[in-house]
Order: sequence, then structure tokens, then C-alpha cells
Amino acid sequence: MDECVFCRIAAGKIPSAKIFENEEVLAFLDIGPVSDGHTLVIPRRHYCRLDECPAQTLSSLAAVLSRTAGAVQKAMKADGYNVLCNNGRAAGQIVEHLHFHIIPRKTGDGLFRNWPSYSYPEGKADQIAEQIRRMLEK
Amino acid sequence: MDECVFCRIAAGKIPSAKIFENEEVLAFLDIGPVSDGHTLVIPRRHYCRLDECPAQTLSSLAAVLSRTAGAVQKAMKADGYNVLCNNGRAAGQIVEHLHFHIIPRKTGDGLFRNWPSYSYPEGKADQIAEQIRRMLEK
Repeated sequence: MDECVFCRIAAGKIPSAKIFENEEVLAFLDIGPVSDGHTLVIPRRHYCRLDECPAQTLSSLAAVLSRTAGAVQKAMKADGYNVLCNNGRAAGQIVEHLHFHIIPRKTGDGLFRNWPSYSYPEGKADQIAEQIRRMLEK
Repeated sequence: MDECVFCRIAAGKIPSAKIFENEEVLAFLDIGPVSDGHTLVIPRRHYCRLDECPAQTLSSLAAVLSRTAGAVQKAMKADGYNVLCNNGRAAGQIVEHLHFHIIPRKTGDGLFRNWPSYSYPEGKADQIAEQIRRMLEK
């Protein structure tokens, strides 16, 4: 995966502002932040999507994500943070190497206000839940 | 935490359209979806934020999140999905019980288009990375 920019960052071939690294996981600043301290957490190995990532790596990612998020919030004196992982172009994934965004937030900063929620008509939620459960069992 | 709506859902005191459950983790449909199949994954025990959640629970959450996201995408015939975890009111967290959203996406659905990224001035990224690393070491 020599052409993947995050593989190249993980291999040290492209410089980054590193926050943390271990054998499996790397955390570094996003060079196009939406707020100061915006951090990316990635597996060193190349996986595109969350559902393609093996259990051991997921476990390491979750641990690093949790600790790093706490540190980002404190260091940035933020009031909260979003953790976001976009999977697939349709979901806004630009670099096709699994990555979690940690985005520090301040009260009233105006980021991500669009949340167009609605209600299911009677019976639809049960029907959808059944469809998803069936896929899980496969 | 008897007053927490997600604790009550986890305890079966409030009904939900369940997708998956084990001893530590529960997945169910969000009743106010932003797209059909919008699923929540939560720890049964009450933690408010990702950085407060212990390692074992994080590991279970990550495994369920990954498998459930794959099933949601397939069942909904989606082109991708977002995984989102809001921590703190400033970040849009409404229910103060740790939860991950899985939001299935279709190409061109128009959700979440706002991504106001910018660049750091020279030297600022290194300075911020150093501040975060210092917090991580504490």
C-alpha cells in the first residue's frame, strides 16, 4: 500500500505531528483540522473500513482513542469532543485507510449543527431491526 | 443510574428495537434516526464519555461496533456509514451515557456536508502536538 498517504505516514516516509504510537496504532494531528488539536488515530496496517479491521487491532485502536481523546480535550481546554469515523466515499471518507477523527469542541463553536432526525412510521423500526439482525447472523 | 434512559433500555425497562446484546454491550435502533437503520451501540454500564470507559469495555464496544456496522451497511444496502460518538454537551451529546452512532449513508444523500477545515500557521501544529503529548504522559 505504498501509494496510501496514511501508510506512508505510519512508515515515517511522510512527516506528521505525532501524538502517540505503538506497534499497532498511530495518533497524529490532522493537517486540515476543523478545530485546533483535531487528531487522527489509525491502525498501522492498511484497512479501509471499520468492519474490515480484525479484533485485536480494534481493541488497540479503542484503547488509544479513549486515552488520546482525554488528552486532546485537556490540552485544548475543550468542553467536549466528537469521535468520527467515515467509512466509504458516500460517508465522506477521503483517505481510504481506516481513521478516527478526534475533534475538540467548545460550547457554541457552531460546528456540526446539522442533525436532520425523523421518526419511523409504526412497525418500520422492528422490520429494519430484523433485517439487520439477519445480516449479523450470516 | 435509574434516571438514565440508556441504562433503562439496557435493563429492559424501556423497550427498544434490539440489534445485538451481550453481557457488556447493547446495540439498538435510534428512535430518532437521521437515516434508516441508524443504530446505537452502548456499554450496559453507565459511563458518560469515551475517555472514562475502561479498557475491557472499550474492547467489547469496538468489536460489536465493527460487526454491527458491517451488518447495518449490508441490510440497508448503504454505500457507506459514519460512526460518531459525541462527548459532552458542547459536542452535541444529549444522553449522557456513552453511545456510538452508526449512520448508514447513500451516495449524494446530503447529510453532514459541513467540514470547515483550515490550515495551521507555521509551527503551530508542533506546538499543539507537544501540549497533547504532555497531557498523555500525565
